[in-house]
Amino acid sequence: MTVRVGVLGATGAVGQRLIQLLDPHPEFEIAALTASDASAGETYKDAAKWRVNSPIPEDVAGLEVRATDPDSVPDDVDLIFSSLPSSVGAEVEPEFCEAGYTVSSNSSNGRMDEDVPLIIPEVNADHVDLLEVQRDERGWDGALLKNPNCSTITMVPPLAGLDREFDLTDVRVSTLQAVSGAGYSGVTSMEIIDNAIPHIGGEEQKMETESRKLLGSFDGAEVHRNEMDVAASCNRIPTLDGHLENVWADTAEDISTADAEAAMESVTGIDLPSSPEKLITVFEEPDRPQPRLDRNVEDGMGVAVGGFRETTDGVQFNCLAHNTMRGAAGASVLNGELLNKRGYL
Amino acid sequence: MTVRVGVLGATGAVGQRLIQLLDPHPEFEIAALTASDASAGETYKDAAKWRVNSPIPEDVAGLEVRATDPDSVPDDVDLIFSSLPSSVGAEVEPEFCEAGYTVSSNSSNGRMDEDVPLIIPEVNADHVDLLEVQRDERGWDGALLKNPNCSTITMVPPLAGLDREFDLTDVRVSTLQAVSGAGYSGVTSMEIIDNAIPHIGGEEQKMETESRKLLGSFDGAEVHRNEMDVAASCNRIPTLDGHLENVWADTAEDISTADAEAAMESVTGIDLPSSPEKLITVFEEPDRPQPRLDRNVEDGMGVAVGGFRETTDGVQFNCLAHNTMRGAAGASVLNGELLNKRGYL
Amino acid sequence: MTVRVGVLGATGAVGQRLIQLLDPHPEFEIAALTASDASAGETYKDAAKWRVNSPIPEDVAGLEVRATDPDSVPDDVDLIFSSLPSSVGAEVEPEFCEAGYTVSSNSSNGRMDEDVPLIIPEVNADHVDLLEVQRDERGWDGALLKNPNCSTITMVPPLAGLDREFDLTDVRVSTLQAVSGAGYSGVTSMEIIDNAIPHIGGEEQKMETESRKLLGSFDGAEVHRNEMDVAASCNRIPTLDGHLENVWADTAEDISTADAEAAMESVTGIDLPSSPEKLITVFEEPDRPQPRLDRNVEDGMGVAVGGFRETTDGVQFNCLAHNTMRGAAGASVLNGELLNKRGYL
Amino acid sequence: MTVRVGVLGATGAVGQRLIQLLDPHPEFEIAALTASDASAGETYKDAAKWRVNSPIPEDVAGLEVRATDPDSVPDDVDLIFSSLPSSVGAEVEPEFCEAGYTVSSNSSNGRMDEDVPLIIPEVNADHVDLLEVQRDERGWDGALLKNPNCSTITMVPPLAGLDREFDLTDVRVSTLQAVSGAGYSGVTSMEIIDNAIPHIGGEEQKMETESRKLLGSFDGAEVHRNEMDVAASCNRIPTLDGHLENVWADTAEDISTADAEAAMESVTGIDLPSSPEKLITVFEEPDRPQPRLDRNVEDGMGVAVGGFRETTDGVQFNCLAHNTMRGAAGASVLNGELLNKRGYL
Repeated sequence: MTVRVGVLGATGAVGQRLIQLLDPHPEFEIAALTASDASAGETYKDAAKWRVNSPIPEDVAGLEVRATDPDSVPDDVDLIFSSLPSSVGAEVEPEFCEAGYTVSSNSSNGRMDEDVPLIIPEVNADHVDLLEVQRDERGWDGALLKNPNCSTITMVPPLAGLDREFDLTDVRVSTLQAVSGAGYSGVTSMEIIDNAIPHIGGEEQKMETESRKLLGSFDGAEVHRNEMDVAASCNRIPTLDGHLENVWADTAEDISTADAEAAMESVTGIDLPSSPEKLITVFEEPDRPQPRLDRNVEDGMGVAVGGFRETTDGVQFNCLAHNTMRGAAGASVLNGELLNKRGYL
Repeated sequence: MTVRVGVLGATGAVGQRLIQLLDPHPEFEIAALTASDASAGETYKDAAKWRVNSPIPEDVAGLEVRATDPDSVPDDVDLIFSSLPSSVGAEVEPEFCEAGYTVSSNSSNGRMDEDVPLIIPEVNADHVDLLEVQRDERGWDGALLKNPNCSTITMVPPLAGLDREFDLTDVRVSTLQAVSGAGYSGVTSMEIIDNAIPHIGGEEQKMETESRKLLGSFDGAEVHRNEMDVAASCNRIPTLDGHLENVWADTAEDISTADAEAAMESVTGIDLPSSPEKLITVFEEPDRPQPRLDRNVEDGMGVAVGGFRETTDGVQFNCLAHNTMRGAAGASVLNGELLNKRGYL
Repeated sequence: MTVRVGVLGATGAVGQRLIQLLDPHPEFEIAALTASDASAGETYKDAAKWRVNSPIPEDVAGLEVRATDPDSVPDDVDLIFSSLPSSVGAEVEPEFCEAGYTVSSNSSNGRMDEDVPLIIPEVNADHVDLLEVQRDERGWDGALLKNPNCSTITMVPPLAGLDREFDLTDVRVSTLQAVSGAGYSGVTSMEIIDNAIPHIGGEEQKMETESRKLLGSFDGAEVHRNEMDVAASCNRIPTLDGHLENVWADTAEDISTADAEAAMESVTGIDLPSSPEKLITVFEEPDRPQPRLDRNVEDGMGVAVGGFRETTDGVQFNCLAHNTMRGAAGASVLNGELLNKRGYL
Repeated sequence: MTVRVGVLGATGAVGQRLIQLLDPHPEFEIAALTASDASAGETYKDAAKWRVNSPIPEDVAGLEVRATDPDSVPDDVDLIFSSLPSSVGAEVEPEFCEAGYTVSSNSSNGRMDEDVPLIIPEVNADHVDLLEVQRDERGWDGALLKNPNCSTITMVPPLAGLDREFDLTDVRVSTLQAVSGAGYSGVTSMEIIDNAIPHIGGEEQKMETESRKLLGSFDGAEVHRNEMDVAASCNRIPTLDGHLENVWADTAEDISTADAEAAMESVTGIDLPSSPEKLITVFEEPDRPQPRLDRNVEDGMGVAVGGFRETTDGVQFNCLAHNTMRGAAGASVLNGELLNKRGYL
């Protein structure tokens, strides 16, 4: 049975990717698109300046854009994808949940709230039942589920493998992030040509806190954060898509590079339509993965790793994922599939 | 009194920078330029495809290029700057030293030899007297002095300040390196546009070993390496000049970000013509230093730092230096000035 | 005697360049800075996000930013530089002129008005006396003078030389323009990395009409447009500064490449502080001028030409100038110097 | 019936693209790969550093690389694709033809020889019968056919439409060419980041002469060149793939932009496997086509046009094609298909 879905913030960069993924989706059918009040009433084609590298889906082009509030969305919509600016999301998402909608959100607001599950299905699908606690506490008919930040998503699957087998104690991560991570107009050309920017506001904190929640344990009542220490340094560089990350992972148990690769490869895709067969692809060439060459691994839903070296306290390695696919729109769709499978719609 | 100097490998990228710096130098006078045999006999103007951002010095343009061997260089040359490919340097530099020439070399060969001083004058000028040991052991009239790799030079001055005051235990460093670090033709445009390369052959090892030698102690007979643990991850990105580095510095003593800044600022310029008044410039803006904006700090001879954050075990920060100035040609010239001042010519 | 000057739109990209040029200027003294109402009352340092590649001048940093209207500017200001968005300029500049201020403007509004002189001092300084007509017609105590668009300024000095000697009939020009031409945020990185945009709104028309006015003749009453036919094709490419242009110039008289070079070199700098000694620099290398290598010729106030080839009907060549210096801020300052010299202040 | 084909210069950039296209080809089967003597005897996988954006075909990876001479290639190979450096091609291609092989070549040598057909099948397929003349004159059992330069291929299909209907008199073209056009290592990153190079050696002449041959008429004995005047200005810019060109086309007959679009769209794909259904795609948005967005139109085998404006003497427009697909490897494959269809194998 097809699930009727809505997209909040449908005209933005991630919103367009969501539509690209949802239009051919086997389980979902696009039923409502919202944007800012200024665009409400326009056709989607007119409201969105379509920039994704495939044509705008014909049946979506003519849809009327609605205002971003629960009253504007039909009642028979079962699942909402949200990709709003966090300040807007913080205000609007709870209204949708209260009105009975289940929301799979990519917006950063509320990710660290105690009763909001933060999920990468291949890593911590069991946290989804935190929604029971959420509904109890908030009295919502709907529900709010979050996916992490794009830079967090890139490193957590490989770290999950290491933590399970060797118990992570300290993680240091330095990122080389693509400009699309800041949205279509987020980084000007004057800022980034022949340059790099060694700070992305709030991003370091997101990586440090979200990763510990994702790799935490859920006991039926709450998520206990992983006790590893995480420190991040985030850089913007002149690449279009694909976040590359240098990671030092210190472990409690002894570990070799072969151990590390094996542990990572044990984190596999799962039985959801958007989960790739091979979640983690290991490169043996020391200079891979590279953003332009490898960001589309597994149609943009995989994570590529390489550059393994043993260190005194663990291993270092590099990882890469497509930031607007695996790191944003694809992550939300995957979470929507999880909600559907687990009967939360 | 003016010192007559020669440049080995004068037509290469660093060779051209050396000439740019030596031509107006208050202590040095260019007396001999060498290149590969294919260029010997040509004028410098014809042999070099001049690419530096200032005109080719008129009095240098007409000099005849010589073969790179001691017999081709006049005896009254007192100091040799070398910027040869390391395989050539390994063969030729000892021949010059044996023939009585004192060599300030940027080439990577021999940097870690026990009796070869590896020097950043503002950091470990006292190591220069290892040359006495070298002359004894090798029976040379000449001498061989090295400056470190460009990526090492960028981080060691700030680390020196931290180590003196707070005793470094562990250093993790991730680099975002400019393409000029690989020489004029080292990185093709097809490799790097819209991309990053997470490995630079040999560079990680250089940073890990050279930094420990530079921050080691010289007891009159040998250099005892610093016992800190260093792990590096080196990336090439699409910038022209300026290596940016994210550093995690763990210390034995407790340290705050204010402590760290103060310790770094205590590493100052010294009394040599090319040493900047302000060796380390601290930026308070969290998104600085940036390669294009800050690589020319102190005419390219300074090191810019910023982005300080406290971590569980120390501090993290970013540093930046101009890789072909402070990191290569300027470093060699500075070492030549040190040799002159200490009476090694 | 020092002229007290004001800058309208002082916080923008061109406004910052204006301040960089005016602060050390031998004839001018910065007396008033204006910006949008939102910034009025702030210090310049706070209102402007300073991005120019030299430090913000100390004596300017603390100036209070004023609203952009004549009442906010002191009466003893003798000359106004304007770099406003054209829609704002169209409204505000006439108000300043009416209130008695003489305005040297870089904004595009009004450039083609019959009684507004459009000037490149080395090319058509005599057009300045059109101001007499303007004052008569408009009843202004002040006056309004314009410099052309940055892409027009690049090609007109070399064309002026050709037209004087060989009579231009047809000009075709294709531009490769830097992103700074669109202002600091005008071109996003997502638009331009690994890309080019073959259209710049309004730019083709500006080049086609402004060039004919600049190379027209002033008879004391009006400017008769040059009768040459001009067609432009404008492209944005991933360079930071420097507009490169491919030009085909058809001439009524026979012309050789040597003729063309000589004719261009006859267009020289003039006796104004910002006019370069050598206005046009000819490169003999066929692959020059190049934006990154040559945009700073004559401190950014020169025009570089090269790549001469004879065609059936004339010559083709390339030209290059720094778009925010010679093409914008420097052009306005030069026009201000002309106004001062000719006694229009 | 499958045609057994060989590839000369199979390890180069265009060679790899050829293999990518030939491996799944419905008519062709890869039977022999050659490279320089240094690689002869190695497997293709070892000899080629595979850089194309799809995996190396499994059945090709293990093929042994042969020396580039006729004796090394099996007799049952019916068709040879050649992508050799022109100096090598000039020597080797005639040897293959003399030995009885039919060669579809992308190399620039011999393109303008009187008895060598230069072909874009959708434009001048009838020129293929010049091979009869060639065989007569040279006494070859084999034959030599050429495709034009990548920048020529981009503009000739749209020009063909204009010439048929409106009779071209003058063409001016300015190119913005991608770095891949120079081969994998042809343009260094130091040359092109934040830069453009306004000259590509020999490219201007190729565009000027090849276009007149392609749009010439074949009378059964020789090709009479089109009498239009063509002048080109070629620029390299920092894009990876896709040559963008600004064209001014003057015509003998009056022409509107609508006429021009219609004339171009009348140049259609033809009945060969690699010819696209829609050869020319017209964009109505004035800022399209753009290299990154539109280079893959029709799987890289189409030509995109846009930016039409009327001029005094004709029209101006922009065109774009993928330089290593439609402009090189795809062009050769298409010519091979034509040879097969016309019975020249």
